[in-house]
Amino acid sequence: MLLRLRETGKEPKGRQIVAQIRRLIQRGHLKAGERLPSTRRLAEQLGLHRGTVASAYQELWALGWLDLRPGVQPRVRLREALVESCREEGGAFPWTERLALPLRLRIPAAQRPLDAGTISFLDFSMDPRLMPVEPFARSLRAVVRREGTEALSYGDPQGQPGLRACLAQRLGQHGVRIRPEEVLITHGAQQALDLALRGLARPGDAVVVESPTYNQMLSLLELHGLRALAMPEGPRGVDLPALETLIQKERPVLLYLMPSFQNPTGRCLDQAARETLLALCEQQALPILEDGFTEEMKYFGRPILPMKSMDRTGLVLYAGTFSKVLFPGLRLGWLAGARPCVEALAAIRRTGELGPSPLLQDALEDFLRKGHYDQHLARLHRRFRRRMETAHAALRRELDPAHVSWEAPSGGYLLWLEVRGLPDGFDLEGRLRRFGVAVRGGDAFFPEPPKGRHFLRLSISNLDEEEIAEGVARLGRGLRALLAEAGS
Amino acid sequence: MLLRLRETGKEPKGRQIVAQIRRLIQRGHLKAGERLPSTRRLAEQLGLHRGTVASAYQELWALGWLDLRPGVQPRVRLREALVESCREEGGAFPWTERLALPLRLRIPAAQRPLDAGTISFLDFSMDPRLMPVEPFARSLRAVVRREGTEALSYGDPQGQPGLRACLAQRLGQHGVRIRPEEVLITHGAQQALDLALRGLARPGDAVVVESPTYNQMLSLLELHGLRALAMPEGPRGVDLPALETLIQKERPVLLYLMPSFQNPTGRCLDQAARETLLALCEQQALPILEDGFTEEMKYFGRPILPMKSMDRTGLVLYAGTFSKVLFPGLRLGWLAGARPCVEALAAIRRTGELGPSPLLQDALEDFLRKGHYDQHLARLHRRFRRRMETAHAALRRELDPAHVSWEAPSGGYLLWLEVRGLPDGFDLEGRLRRFGVAVRGGDAFFPEPPKGRHFLRLSISNLDEEEIAEGVARLGRGLRALLAEAGS
Repeated sequence: MLLRLRETGKEPKGRQIVAQIRRLIQRGHLKAGERLPSTRRLAEQLGLHRGTVASAYQELWALGWLDLRPGVQPRVRLREALVESCREEGGAFPWTERLALPLRLRIPAAQRPLDAGTISFLDFSMDPRLMPVEPFARSLRAVVRREGTEALSYGDPQGQPGLRACLAQRLGQHGVRIRPEEVLITHGAQQALDLALRGLARPGDAVVVESPTYNQMLSLLELHGLRALAMPEGPRGVDLPALETLIQKERPVLLYLMPSFQNPTGRCLDQAARETLLALCEQQALPILEDGFTEEMKYFGRPILPMKSMDRTGLVLYAGTFSKVLFPGLRLGWLAGARPCVEALAAIRRTGELGPSPLLQDALEDFLRKGHYDQHLARLHRRFRRRMETAHAALRRELDPAHVSWEAPSGGYLLWLEVRGLPDGFDLEGRLRRFGVAVRGGDAFFPEPPKGRHFLRLSISNLDEEEIAEGVARLGRGLRALLAEAGS
Repeated sequence: MLLRLRETGKEPKGRQIVAQIRRLIQRGHLKAGERLPSTRRLAEQLGLHRGTVASAYQELWALGWLDLRPGVQPRVRLREALVESCREEGGAFPWTERLALPLRLRIPAAQRPLDAGTISFLDFSMDPRLMPVEPFARSLRAVVRREGTEALSYGDPQGQPGLRACLAQRLGQHGVRIRPEEVLITHGAQQALDLALRGLARPGDAVVVESPTYNQMLSLLELHGLRALAMPEGPRGVDLPALETLIQKERPVLLYLMPSFQNPTGRCLDQAARETLLALCEQQALPILEDGFTEEMKYFGRPILPMKSMDRTGLVLYAGTFSKVLFPGLRLGWLAGARPCVEALAAIRRTGELGPSPLLQDALEDFLRKGHYDQHLARLHRRFRRRMETAHAALRRELDPAHVSWEAPSGGYLLWLEVRGLPDGFDLEGRLRRFGVAVRGGDAFFPEPPKGRHFLRLSISNLDEEEIAEGVARLGRGLRALLAEAGS
């Protein structure tokens, strides 16, 4: 066996031995079963310590190129080669056949990049300019100091009891009487929705949703193999008799809705609608999944309480989150409901993964208990009262009510516009980009895309007043131009 | 309308008005449709500011007890009562009918509490005495300082690119050539397993598992409605021809295994077994889910590389975690595999929830890059070399090889004992408690509980050398007593 070790350069001798023997085997100069010199002999040949050679042989053994047994001369064996190629193509295994994703889950085509200077109403997330990072960092430090290893060990799989108690107390302020045992801490509201479907639905089942509704819920329904039934609408909201007929016919397993500041419309269901819907679901024994994702962002008008607050029989599951009002990066939300249901969903979550980090949960609890969240919320309300007023004023000023209609929401971050007078299939979202403004087209929010109607969702969560005013002005210019073009 | 406000006491006047009017309605003294005095009149009657009364009326409106419209006299309406009762029973809604959990997921009967002074080999989690909290706390602070709001915003749903790059590099040290795009950061290895099943299996499908295998995998299979096929065993490991027949007959969608320091047995598959198993799966086009949950806890003998390192066609999905070697409370693990597969599973995860907190991921990356993890691992190896040697020595000293057999694992934290000479159904786990030692019975780890055989799993992850020696001594005394009793 001929090895040539370089004296200069950085590569250690042992590594050179490994590489060269490996190459000799791969090139067929050393064949399976062939004997190699003993460590002692090779060390003598090369003028090295025996330990260096022994280590190299051990590495070759570990890599599968040698059979090494005490007292027996080393032999070449042919191992499965370590894989160094064939990755560009993602491997030869036919994964795409095995993993047929539902349509809505296919990797979304890269979003159209934003041109420089574009004002974007796309982004629906907390404005970093309003995040109270400093007090949260203090809570984080306090928890590490106070709890040490405790905060970095396994926590309660249902969520930290302290945070659950805190949430139960907060929900009490919204008229929801719930105990800490009836709360499950989740990775954002999204996981609460996923868990409810995992627990309650089997492939082929139906779920009633608003139309339009939260687009990610539609993706979840597809992922679970479920049918979305659009809640029938009359001229003044939900058509209750039609809904009753639908429920009796299709036997859905769940009714999902966002009664407050809905995504995408920003609308609130009024108290009467909440009550009649709840009564119908009680009568039909249909559980409700109430998504209160921006419940606490009510900053105009009188408070309105979640449906969960009126839930006598315990059929309402309530989902909430800190992602839209505090830090999306905490990935913390919750599900509150009757104990047998919450415990079963906790068992499912515990089996799928063991829940959010105790460290972040404890830090959030500290932050809540010290009053920082309430202060932050008050500040957020002041800001968004002004931002939303700015948006309303700009919309009134810039848009022609003959062609565009919208409602003024009483909270949250979203505005929903209907544009009339455009041909079917008109790429409104795409065409508006030329006017320096990015908005979200409405189609993705409907269980069935609405034919011949054009909707736009505007999020003001990430824009200040100046940006909102200028963005709406550009939107107005764009719509006027596109409508004129379409009308000509 | 007769309201009596208390002048003394802490309760504000407004809240007294709300409570009293509500009580009058609930007791029927005020009926639906009945008019209430205007805010001005009631304020005069009670000698209060009008604003106090107006706020109280608004709260009553929000709570659903009043109809309030500008310029119209307030009227009583009967709202759905806020729920204050019926929670003790978990609500009247028949949740247990709707949520039929599979057997293994039923809320586990409260674990037998440990008597004071019991030495417990039950707990399989990092020893808090060995957790490097201080350097991690520094990494956390560094990330908050450096990134600010960035670390608390939405991150990359596939996991932070920096941490993925770090993991790809680490996997390279184990012979796994993978790029950051081929890594998905998960909530521990557990979520990686769940995602693989969500993507690859449909209810009724079969999955091949070792027998015994990781008990939580068996729970996951039940949750997904899947069948567990036990890998056929011959006298010297996997019976390959029988496995081939099984695969051809049952057409499983996945083969799941822990080749290194398996849970529960602590065993390692040798290189030859890894290769032949991989070759068979390639030939049968059967994807492998390789769970390397304590891959880096090899502290005796020569290294052995993961099956993923030999995976030419990309059919191996590799799952790993930081829970068993660093901080369980980070809830961070990963899945690595061919890009089309990882991207599809990332899409599923993104739909179910948006992934782990960027803050914790970035802090972990900082911790890894600064070398703290490698230092910690080296320390862990030194410690567990001694702990495991102590366990081996104690087992040799205390247990009778005629009745108890075990293998000496080359790493990890687990020992697996078979006890012979006990009658079928003997509650070994329970009876040993009287000897001041807690161990885990083996039944839960088998797809089909083994008839007439008794296994025990010992975890030494949380015990120091003294505790291990004493615990094994107690185990030895207990086994001798119980075997003598059973034999008599």
